[in-house]
Amino acid sequence: MTTYQITTELSTNRKQKTPAEQLGFGKIFTDHMFVMDYEDGKGWHNATITPYAPITLSPAAMVFHYGQAVFEGLKAYMTEDGEVQLFRPDRNFQRLNSSNARLCIPPIDEDFALEALKELLRVDREWVPTAPGTSLYIRPFIIATESYLGVNPAKSYKFMIIMSPVGSYYKEGINPVKILVEQQYVRAVVGGTGEAKTAGNYASSLKGSEIAAQQGYSQTLWLDGKENKYVEEVGSMNIFFKISGKVITPALNGSILPGITRDSMIEVLKSKNIPIEERAIAFEEVVEAAKNGTLEEAFGTGTAAVISPVGELKWLDDVISVNNGQIGEVTQMLYDTLTGIQYGKVADTFGWTVKI
Amino acid sequence: MTTYQITTELSTNRKQKTPAEQLGFGKIFTDHMFVMDYEDGKGWHNATITPYAPITLSPAAMVFHYGQAVFEGLKAYMTEDGEVQLFRPDRNFQRLNSSNARLCIPPIDEDFALEALKELLRVDREWVPTAPGTSLYIRPFIIATESYLGVNPAKSYKFMIIMSPVGSYYKEGINPVKILVEQQYVRAVVGGTGEAKTAGNYASSLKGSEIAAQQGYSQTLWLDGKENKYVEEVGSMNIFFKISGKVITPALNGSILPGITRDSMIEVLKSKNIPIEERAIAFEEVVEAAKNGTLEEAFGTGTAAVISPVGELKWLDDVISVNNGQIGEVTQMLYDTLTGIQYGKVADTFGWTVKI
Ligand SMILES: Cc1ncc(COP(=O)(O)O)c(C=O)c1O
Ligand SMILES: Cc1ncc(COP(=O)(O)O)c(C=O)c1O
Repeated sequence: MTTYQITTELSTNRKQKTPAEQLGFGKIFTDHMFVMDYEDGKGWHNATITPYAPITLSPAAMVFHYGQAVFEGLKAYMTEDGEVQLFRPDRNFQRLNSSNARLCIPPIDEDFALEALKELLRVDREWVPTAPGTSLYIRPFIIATESYLGVNPAKSYKFMIIMSPVGSYYKEGINPVKILVEQQYVRAVVGGTGEAKTAGNYASSLKGSEIAAQQGYSQTLWLDGKENKYVEEVGSMNIFFKISGKVITPALNGSILPGITRDSMIEVLKSKNIPIEERAIAFEEVVEAAKNGTLEEAFGTGTAAVISPVGELKWLDDVISVNNGQIGEVTQMLYDTLTGIQYGKVADTFGWTVKI
Repeated sequence: MTTYQITTELSTNRKQKTPAEQLGFGKIFTDHMFVMDYEDGKGWHNATITPYAPITLSPAAMVFHYGQAVFEGLKAYMTEDGEVQLFRPDRNFQRLNSSNARLCIPPIDEDFALEALKELLRVDREWVPTAPGTSLYIRPFIIATESYLGVNPAKSYKFMIIMSPVGSYYKEGINPVKILVEQQYVRAVVGGTGEAKTAGNYASSLKGSEIAAQQGYSQTLWLDGKENKYVEEVGSMNIFFKISGKVITPALNGSILPGITRDSMIEVLKSKNIPIEERAIAFEEVVEAAKNGTLEEAFGTGTAAVISPVGELKWLDDVISVNNGQIGEVTQMLYDTLTGIQYGKVADTFGWTVKI
């Protein structure tokens, strides 16, 4: 780990905290942010914690034109003992560097990034909400800042971490979601940027969500870009199916995001001796299982909701109801185990949590 | 056309002009820029021409995270009679709106956008360079500005036009380029964003360019994302081949950018009764033609260079030399015709030029 000095400038104008019931997602930000600059020849430098504030860029800043932008999403949780803890944050900074590599953005020092995040959390500790199910969402991101209209990797970047207190995802209980299987639009293809967490992937997914919403579905299930046949992932979640007692999820084939929740679910399933397979899944297999009564559960996994049971899937003219629109047993067990570890209520036998 | 009022604030601090020999591409900007805002409920409003200056955005501005960003590229040319003219600008604003539609960005008023551009050009008229081959590059673009960490179309945007005087692309004569046919990475796939001019497409192309550069090639030729077989386009150019007297170019299949230069070349070829076909082209067909001596010319087309003759193509272990690395006859004719029209030296029988 390279040791960078962090310069801290504290805010003299602290914001009012929003009551837990009124916390939504991603609208309110804490008092401080972390910023670090990169310049060719100089490397990453100028690590600072400063009051949360707008940033000023040239209209020709390359991020606006050529989209060199990567990000991460993780959470800090308040335990019952009043300790603030992170869930597998090393994995997020590792994935940020994988995204950097794909997008020709210079790598960050992962260990230092975690130290910087911990320091930022210490400064804004009182922003970690305490009500059940609430947490502090953390958004590390990197953008190209060079002022140049040419399609090249930029020569300067900003690495920032901003944080937002978020409400409970399941205030009114865990409600299974309805998902539309997308036929026309494609999120990613092998050889593209699907396995990176880069801005453009999300922009390209909006049209599918719009179509799903028009039909009364809250999410899109993406199929592969080559054959429009194999299951990839959902909006910002990886997807799992339980068929005939076995849990299956698409293998990491190069076009889906390697979710950290996905990886954790697989580990938990293995530890409980529940059969889990990572492999290609033709959507037809899911339809078949639904028809012959062997599709037992379906759920999405991601940092925001941890787990989202799937209650209904629509594919062309087929409407598949999963487990009568109820949360399944394995889904509930996984939710309880993971949130238990995250909030410090269940012993972390995996070594996943990091106290600040 | 909706009539919006443009508020103009002139710069009191005009910049020094760079001598023509020192003009590069996309580094220097004129004294003014056009800016217009969008807000849900209010629509596009607040059209202004102001001194060229940095912009200030929230670190949570959605463009940084979810990549809703589209752009255009066109040029203003100084004719020998001292008139400033644009080349098919209506097509650029039309394409901007197609990109908007794919990216769930609200449409702009195309006619008003052209009026605004003309007004900006009048204000910065003295920035249109006059030396042979030079021009004023124009970059209209739209970015999502809403401060919100949620994957949704943003509720606010900025539409801006910035301008940059650019040097002659062919100062040392027209030099054919060497192109590497990319095998591993994919730029776009049908159903994705390939036919939109959106930031993410360019970010995803950088890795291919890096690999090409490492092997001494200046550009990447992309093949299709499904079969890795059919020719798509090059970096920021569409591609044409002349085989056995016939010119062929990939059809607009949904994953390549519908280039305005491409469309213009096709029109010029038709007007000269040179056979031109738009269809799927397997790269193997090009290799075959090279082997049997019927590959006569190859060239890329785009706003920046107008035409780039291709001198060499590398595909796996095959190295194909085109026309002994010399510019071909049809390529030269197309270059002369299009630049002739753009600089007002050749009569514009197509009605493509627009005086400001
Ligand atoms: C496209 C996509 N897939 C999957 C995930 C789930 O990943 P993780 O479990 O690391 O949050 C996310 C969210 O981060 C995502 O954006
Ligand atoms: C990906 C891509 N293809 C093709 C082109 C050529 O388009 P045009 O002729 O409109 O400049 C461009 C440049 O604008 C481009 O970025």
